[in-house]
Amino acid sequence: MAVYTEVPEDALFAFVAQYEIGDVLAFKGIAEGVENTNYYLHTSQGDFILTLYEKRVREDELPFFLNLMEHLARRGLNCPQPLRTRDGEKLGRLCGRAAAIFTFLEGLAIRRPNATHCGALGAALAQMHEAGADFGMRRTNALSLTGWPPLFAAAEDRAEQVAPGLTRRIREELAFLELNWPRGLPEGVIHADLFPDNAFFIGEEVSGIIDFYFACTDYFAYDLAICLNAWCFEADHSFNVTKAKAMLAGYERVRRLEDAEAGALPILCRGSALRFMLTRLVDWLNVPPGALVRPKDPLEYDRKLGFHRRVESARDYGLVR
Amino acid sequence: MAVYTEVPEDALFAFVAQYEIGDVLAFKGIAEGVENTNYYLHTSQGDFILTLYEKRVREDELPFFLNLMEHLARRGLNCPQPLRTRDGEKLGRLCGRAAAIFTFLEGLAIRRPNATHCGALGAALAQMHEAGADFGMRRTNALSLTGWPPLFAAAEDRAEQVAPGLTRRIREELAFLELNWPRGLPEGVIHADLFPDNAFFIGEEVSGIIDFYFACTDYFAYDLAICLNAWCFEADHSFNVTKAKAMLAGYERVRRLEDAEAGALPILCRGSALRFMLTRLVDWLNVPPGALVRPKDPLEYDRKLGFHRRVESARDYGLVR
Repeated sequence: MAVYTEVPEDALFAFVAQYEIGDVLAFKGIAEGVENTNYYLHTSQGDFILTLYEKRVREDELPFFLNLMEHLARRGLNCPQPLRTRDGEKLGRLCGRAAAIFTFLEGLAIRRPNATHCGALGAALAQMHEAGADFGMRRTNALSLTGWPPLFAAAEDRAEQVAPGLTRRIREELAFLELNWPRGLPEGVIHADLFPDNAFFIGEEVSGIIDFYFACTDYFAYDLAICLNAWCFEADHSFNVTKAKAMLAGYERVRRLEDAEAGALPILCRGSALRFMLTRLVDWLNVPPGALVRPKDPLEYDRKLGFHRRVESARDYGLVR
Repeated sequence: MAVYTEVPEDALFAFVAQYEIGDVLAFKGIAEGVENTNYYLHTSQGDFILTLYEKRVREDELPFFLNLMEHLARRGLNCPQPLRTRDGEKLGRLCGRAAAIFTFLEGLAIRRPNATHCGALGAALAQMHEAGADFGMRRTNALSLTGWPPLFAAAEDRAEQVAPGLTRRIREELAFLELNWPRGLPEGVIHADLFPDNAFFIGEEVSGIIDFYFACTDYFAYDLAICLNAWCFEADHSFNVTKAKAMLAGYERVRRLEDAEAGALPILCRGSALRFMLTRLVDWLNVPPGALVRPKDPLEYDRKLGFHRRVESARDYGLVR
């Protein structure tokens, strides 16, 4: 949520001139996207988003993300579509950074989604999974099972400062997930970070999905588990089964979960909760001086993990079978 | 340059529904305006800016600023015009703050203005002074002669930490300005903060002036002195007389300076340099922990002040007489 890179007008005009989008009429840094710098760009031909990629995104991975967004948009998904320059390039350089221009999506992120929003989101997630089925590239999920122990190692010596007992809980959870993580579930391109910040609505309809910079190849049902965690808990940390039921039903209207996926949902939810707890914990313990972004609370996901540990089956999430 | 207040969608929809501007289609926090929170608001009827007033703006002063913008916009100046609700109100409440919706101005702030930009800016400043001539309200400039000693008092005990000799230079300058500040110059509504951040251009034409929250009743020529300081020094602190000459000529194409104003320019430039040095010094010495905005360098204005002390007459700024 910060503008990390200021773009001088000469550099901006030269960059935009590579595209067939007319003249710049307005250009404003926007508080969207935690990892990158985003500008609202208004030209004589319409509205766009200009993104500069900051250090946390690896440049060699950008072709995966940009090709994916182009692929999904062409399949009819409402996601930012990278424009091509006159030379056919999707990715350029601006102010020493990789940069791209995208179509502008209408809609707004909903801070307090209701069950109808959750149902629409579930359906949009399944649409994304189906639209990505014939996408030709793969990207390993660096933040799944094998990525968690190194994250824990980076936080282990100070985790007890954050909450007593946290070290033990993480260690036990890692051991459990290592032993029980499902194998061979249906997989493909997943969003892997579809929080309410990253979904736009007009009314109760999903008008856009953004921020694909964690997208990777993994289990579809794991993506759903991430969304259950991100959308179906209340501010008081209670689980709202009405929202979860709506999300799962929305998903299954588009793509029906196989029995193995349904059976694995509780453990996938545990894994997803641990994943966000660990990355937040590392960020929490490593806030740089003068940081422009406040870290998110890792303990929110510690509590969610506690809930999923007590779940017996996907029926507890409202899945009807 | 920060979003201080997050607006939940329910509050947003209720606020926007008071106006006849259609349905919200996009809403993004933008990095514009240091003191307030600004959102880009796109509705089915067009583009707008929604401003929430944060603590540094006194609510009882908002009617002056909003009435002024309405007045200037009606006189043809390109500035944000506050919309009126169905009940005729320009000012409302949102998230516990005073809030208003404004017309959206095209154009972009220029980081590296050239002499042509400076000429256009000078003319726009004079247009603003003329457009404000029949504005009925007054607001004392709290950051002029009588406001400087209290600012200095707030910084005096630590000024030497910022630069050796600074305390003495400020004290001498205050004494000089107190004795020599001009009296009886033509006055009216001035912008008082027309930095390059606050002027939009399309090409080399001024397309908008924003951020009127320091506007007040003071000498027109003092406003010009603020602009000479803000626009006509290079990054290496050298004074660019070509830019200043263009600015003064641009101003005089619209409103000719009286002899007394021209004669007072050097001292008005000294006062203006001291004013920004003092407010920056106080901010510099009082950065709150976790601040989202980095303070600006007070010494930039110490150097500008040094330049103006060596000026003999307005001819040194390129004024042709």
